[in-house]
Amino acid sequence: MSSLPIADLILAEMDQSARAGNVPRHRRLYEAIRSAILSRRLPVGSKLPSTRDLARDLGLSRNTVVTAFEQLLAEGYVSSRTGSGTFVADTLPEPATEELAPERQSRNSHHNGAIAPQHAPQEGTTAAVGATLSVRGRRVADHAAGHRYEIQPFVPGDDDFSVFPIKLWQRLQNKYWREARPELLDYGQNGGYLPLRRAIADYLRVSRSVRVTVDQVLITGGTQHSLDLCAQLLADAGDTAWVEDPCYWGAQRVFESRDLDLHPVRVDDEGMNPTAEDQHKPPRLIYLTPSHQYPKSVVMSLARRRLLLDIAARTGAWILEDDYDSEFRYTGRPLSSLQGLDTHDRVVYMGTFSKILYPGIKVGYMVVPPALVAPFRSALYDLQRPGQMMQQAALADFLEQGHFATHVRRIRQLYGQRRELLQRTLKPILGNAATLSKEESGLHLVIQLPPGTDDERLAQEAAEQGLQVRALSTYYLGAEKERGLVVGYAYVPTDKIAYYGRLLGNVVKAASAGRR
Amino acid sequence: MSSLPIADLILAEMDQSARAGNVPRHRRLYEAIRSAILSRRLPVGSKLPSTRDLARDLGLSRNTVVTAFEQLLAEGYVSSRTGSGTFVADTLPEPATEELAPERQSRNSHHNGAIAPQHAPQEGTTAAVGATLSVRGRRVADHAAGHRYEIQPFVPGDDDFSVFPIKLWQRLQNKYWREARPELLDYGQNGGYLPLRRAIADYLRVSRSVRVTVDQVLITGGTQHSLDLCAQLLADAGDTAWVEDPCYWGAQRVFESRDLDLHPVRVDDEGMNPTAEDQHKPPRLIYLTPSHQYPKSVVMSLARRRLLLDIAARTGAWILEDDYDSEFRYTGRPLSSLQGLDTHDRVVYMGTFSKILYPGIKVGYMVVPPALVAPFRSALYDLQRPGQMMQQAALADFLEQGHFATHVRRIRQLYGQRRELLQRTLKPILGNAATLSKEESGLHLVIQLPPGTDDERLAQEAAEQGLQVRALSTYYLGAEKERGLVVGYAYVPTDKIAYYGRLLGNVVKAASAGRR
Repeated sequence: MSSLPIADLILAEMDQSARAGNVPRHRRLYEAIRSAILSRRLPVGSKLPSTRDLARDLGLSRNTVVTAFEQLLAEGYVSSRTGSGTFVADTLPEPATEELAPERQSRNSHHNGAIAPQHAPQEGTTAAVGATLSVRGRRVADHAAGHRYEIQPFVPGDDDFSVFPIKLWQRLQNKYWREARPELLDYGQNGGYLPLRRAIADYLRVSRSVRVTVDQVLITGGTQHSLDLCAQLLADAGDTAWVEDPCYWGAQRVFESRDLDLHPVRVDDEGMNPTAEDQHKPPRLIYLTPSHQYPKSVVMSLARRRLLLDIAARTGAWILEDDYDSEFRYTGRPLSSLQGLDTHDRVVYMGTFSKILYPGIKVGYMVVPPALVAPFRSALYDLQRPGQMMQQAALADFLEQGHFATHVRRIRQLYGQRRELLQRTLKPILGNAATLSKEESGLHLVIQLPPGTDDERLAQEAAEQGLQVRALSTYYLGAEKERGLVVGYAYVPTDKIAYYGRLLGNVVKAASAGRR
Repeated sequence: MSSLPIADLILAEMDQSARAGNVPRHRRLYEAIRSAILSRRLPVGSKLPSTRDLARDLGLSRNTVVTAFEQLLAEGYVSSRTGSGTFVADTLPEPATEELAPERQSRNSHHNGAIAPQHAPQEGTTAAVGATLSVRGRRVADHAAGHRYEIQPFVPGDDDFSVFPIKLWQRLQNKYWREARPELLDYGQNGGYLPLRRAIADYLRVSRSVRVTVDQVLITGGTQHSLDLCAQLLADAGDTAWVEDPCYWGAQRVFESRDLDLHPVRVDDEGMNPTAEDQHKPPRLIYLTPSHQYPKSVVMSLARRRLLLDIAARTGAWILEDDYDSEFRYTGRPLSSLQGLDTHDRVVYMGTFSKILYPGIKVGYMVVPPALVAPFRSALYDLQRPGQMMQQAALADFLEQGHFATHVRRIRQLYGQRRELLQRTLKPILGNAATLSKEESGLHLVIQLPPGTDDERLAQEAAEQGLQVRALSTYYLGAEKERGLVVGYAYVPTDKIAYYGRLLGNVVKAASAGRR
């Protein structure tokens, strides 16, 4: 698809710009597009070409275009519609000028096109900003996950919430808004709305063999919040946390923000594999994804589960079992949770609704051992002030009335189809160049590459094709990093999976051929 | 109001109990009521007498009854309806027995009345639990704020959300649920929904003279979340945080949870008053409530504002300006924010909607200096995963369509009436025994007591009368603690304020007479 008319417009803007040649290209492109928007030459609501098409038409690298788009998005000049593309925003940002007194900034002033925002993060301020953040603040900033722009195929972790039953959900919520019960407008007490806690307890008991009574359930704002509570209540600054290597980056960030000392323990095809050497660094916390290791997908074997429970019982460590997508096993019987095997009350089990319902719902849960119920409830209230009780009430109905089970079956089938299509597309193309992770579950698979492959470069090449995969090596903390591409398929429309799969397969194949 | 029939029932249960005399009374009472509930002698939905009435009829201290009620509430046997009382719950908790296999626990089993929950927090486990929490976890547990049960008069910080326009709010939300825009189901980007950020920026610029452009606004999950982000991004473990003395306990908890070293700086009638000695402990953060010091109510003078801005500029400290209830000034012109006077970008300004709309909405905001926008957005996304975008969209409309302004005027008038009624009731009764804080704003006032008064004991005596005030001395970290009672009037129905006010006034007067 040609983007020529808009490309011409942008080229014209870039030519007119008086900026010298040493201004980075992404900056010149950003300024050109912004200028076109401010002057209305690119009208509100116009759809921008995809970064791939625009790069081709402007003779720029796709990364250049992507960087410019990211800044336009960050500042609100454009907005991205999930699955549709990038559009000139209908609500433009306030230009900020140091010279103008605040009261003279108005919503109309940007229409003149004459005022340039000076508040955009400038190159060269990073050092100054760095000096003012704390050390731990700088670490967070350096590891920033980056924006989600132009929801693109294969981003791991994205779920397809376009199939979420919105009207039903709206109806369930409206019932409670009509009743207008004041306690549902108040902060949550006792770890969360009781019927929801009970529905979750019932569900976990049956589906995951979790040993749970209703008062052990706490409703949180999601996995990050659950992990944060555990990291601060169960460990002190400087304590050792064993994490899987490779490890979910979100957990790494939370533990670092709580000043824990991360000790990576390698994952093999049975899951986390603590060696005698690892045991010289006894942990206070052990973070596990035993149902479906993130990102390698392996299922933790029974023997390994027993080993880790034994280690926890002996050392007094807490195991944090993050069961983030256990609903998505496509073959085989449901697995028992690690928690269900534990007889020493060492496991905190956690899950989330954000991958099954929609991300913005921000509802997760923890099952804590009985002795931790009171302190966790206190902390939840004192530090996080739970709310959104109307939503919790609607969610309880959603579970109790069977809609949750129906929805899970539906998306499990949908994601299973997409996974299978992707596998069938990739296998013939990849041939011997790579193997696919064999575990049949989750929202992603891994294309496993030979040792020493530059998987970051390969991810970059895929990005040039508009495919947002992640290099497996980037999830590793330890020195020995396996190579591969982590590919999220859940959010790719079924009628596009084969197309994108072929693109991806060819990128990998070409790189492999290049290496021989 | 006599509670005799139920009191008789409970007395009968207590008599029948075979428990020996060394079981604490609150425990015997708890077991008696629980037994009556499980056996259906106290049917589902029955209203329990108030703790005051029941104490009187059973010949027990009110604290004994309160403790028993708290445990029944924590375990879900009873629930409290805001403003109405305590009721036997229609959703009883799962009894937990170690002997029963999980699959035999059913919702019906408690009806037999034979199974006693064994999961209730037991005396004697505290030490065991303490050994398993981290040091910082134990600190959180020890300082637990406690349950909100039986919403009682005069709890400071409660706002009257019974006047929140629910139907209007429902209508605004439904509009977005009908449109079903997928990006509103996704995680929030760029610090929050742009139209909401802009509406907040516009509002703050006009009402509080905050210097702000839309990209400096971040939407958070409330004040605790805002403070937590600042505490971790702007300070490291062990860094000094100056806090007002007395200080809002919620901020203390968050700073402690981030391992900051709290240095209390005394508040006089101009606000926080740093001495030369305080300046020997230069701060990394300075936490202020300058509009309306919490809890002493004083407004920070211009001179003091300039001093603190100067200190921050010289030391590189960050000022956290918590403007938690600036909408509620009843007399005088709106105050400029401290942030509006700052010319060195040292102030992070924060506010919340939970006191104006309803607590469970969980929406707050920060205005950060431009250099902090990028790292704060990253951290907000990586660590807290903002969501609830549908709600943000509805809130943006609520502000932009003028409903917020209308609502604020309404509750300001309502709270102003209640404040005035309370003052008029208290003054003649108190006479010279105490003075009332003079600042006309906020959701609470302070009854100031002579030095050395045992204000905790006085708060206890008020509690015996069913009035939940807080002792001013309990907000102090330093050794010199002023004495008084912090009295929240916002949530007390207007037709009851005089009655409760007289009760309270008489408690204070009687104690004062007792002291002479």
